[in-house]
Amino acid sequence: MFTPSSVHPKVMREKIRTGEWQSPTAGCSVGYVQANLVVLPQALAYEFLLFCHRNPKPCPLLEVTDAGDPEPRTAAPGADLRVAVPKYHVYRGGALEQETTNLLEVWREDLVGFLLGCSFTFDVALQRAGVPVRHLEEGKNVSMYITNRPCRPSGSFAGPLVVSMRPIPAALIPRAVEVTARFPLAHGAPVHVGEPEAIGISDLSRPHFGDAVSIRSGEAPVFWACGVTPQAVAMHAKPELMITHAPGHMFITDLSEEELAHSPM
Amino acid sequence: MFTPSSVHPKVMREKIRTGEWQSPTAGCSVGYVQANLVVLPQALAYEFLLFCHRNPKPCPLLEVTDAGDPEPRTAAPGADLRVAVPKYHVYRGGALEQETTNLLEVWREDLVGFLLGCSFTFDVALQRAGVPVRHLEEGKNVSMYITNRPCRPSGSFAGPLVVSMRPIPAALIPRAVEVTARFPLAHGAPVHVGEPEAIGISDLSRPHFGDAVSIRSGEAPVFWACGVTPQAVAMHAKPELMITHAPGHMFITDLSEEELAHSPM
Repeated sequence: MFTPSSVHPKVMREKIRTGEWQSPTAGCSVGYVQANLVVLPQALAYEFLLFCHRNPKPCPLLEVTDAGDPEPRTAAPGADLRVAVPKYHVYRGGALEQETTNLLEVWREDLVGFLLGCSFTFDVALQRAGVPVRHLEEGKNVSMYITNRPCRPSGSFAGPLVVSMRPIPAALIPRAVEVTARFPLAHGAPVHVGEPEAIGISDLSRPHFGDAVSIRSGEAPVFWACGVTPQAVAMHAKPELMITHAPGHMFITDLSEEELAHSPM
Repeated sequence: MFTPSSVHPKVMREKIRTGEWQSPTAGCSVGYVQANLVVLPQALAYEFLLFCHRNPKPCPLLEVTDAGDPEPRTAAPGADLRVAVPKYHVYRGGALEQETTNLLEVWREDLVGFLLGCSFTFDVALQRAGVPVRHLEEGKNVSMYITNRPCRPSGSFAGPLVVSMRPIPAALIPRAVEVTARFPLAHGAPVHVGEPEAIGISDLSRPHFGDAVSIRSGEAPVFWACGVTPQAVAMHAKPELMITHAPGHMFITDLSEEELAHSPM
């Protein structure tokens, strides 16, 4: 009997490789870190790596593969980035060209894979700490907004910070900061609390990505740096070739969520 | 009256630029972060940046400049890396070619500057927390050892982890871990406690770099990742051109030590 929530990431990745699992990965291999995938040609890898270093809150880099090597040796030894995500998006010149279930035909010897932490990890940690996570309660996607805060540019990679928003009861805001600050590789502490106008957000009920959620009396909107930022920035740079996971169809690493809260070995 | 310990980094850097200050920077601009400097040609910058990302404990990267731009825009806006360090070492093909007080003649449009955190910051924090720092007490340089632990390689950059060692009374080891863990950009928590043989160190009284210090009864040797690691690894890669600060003659940033303990903005 196959239970996606409780199997080891190796098992999930095998089901994904063989095509038995083609759905979003939310709720799979609970307790293990899921990652955003960005693949770029080596010629653009330096500028993108530097962009991630300069903007660590939206771009928490878990691993960068060697050019041509599809194995993320630290995050998931033995895995193959070409067959480990249920659905990929292939962009050329900034435009979506293809949706595919593997990269075996698209892969090139000059491609570099970037795995970036995602907020699945801290949503779980917030819930465990008794902080409500509205979009999960309401069965929606998190609300995301383009801010007026520029990222620090790197070559052709430049653009505004994108944030996700969770409405938090005033008394729980300190706890929400403490809990998420433990996970710098999953976007870490919030970047802004309340006052959406101050970061260029005029209407919380109209997010740029994802769904609107209800904000109750006594709650403030709390904003975290969002992993959509590097994808938006990379898209805007119109790279010759860029490959990402399809939304929600993440790469499941072998890293446990607790490992992200500790300093690296 | 000029008091090096209490002036702002901008003032110290101006004294260094004009040649009025040509000495080591220990004790200058107390409370501000000092950094190791590594300058490499753009052609090698990707591999070195990736090496730093893969080995964050020995290589805590504070800033990477744009190619040809000598200004570290985040760590010290307005500063000029070519005239901001009292003494530079210029290496060609892995060999020391020149010691110089500025880089005005050596600078090229393809050079990239890397600023890496150093342990000055946490030595001060340890002392403030009541943890003895033996090499400071004894007026010596910290003891450093080459271990048998390989760094994660990146292209031509590969080699063993170098560690610094401080003898700590057993009862204060947890505090030493807590205090230094707050500063991931100054090497963070230790990598090893006691048992030097386990990491390939056979004789603590004969460090590979720096001075031996006395280890008293009831103390254990505690090991931290050391900023000599990236310099040793880069030297071993024999780059066409590499420039570093001369030992002890550091780059003084505008970042306060407390800023390093917080998540980036």
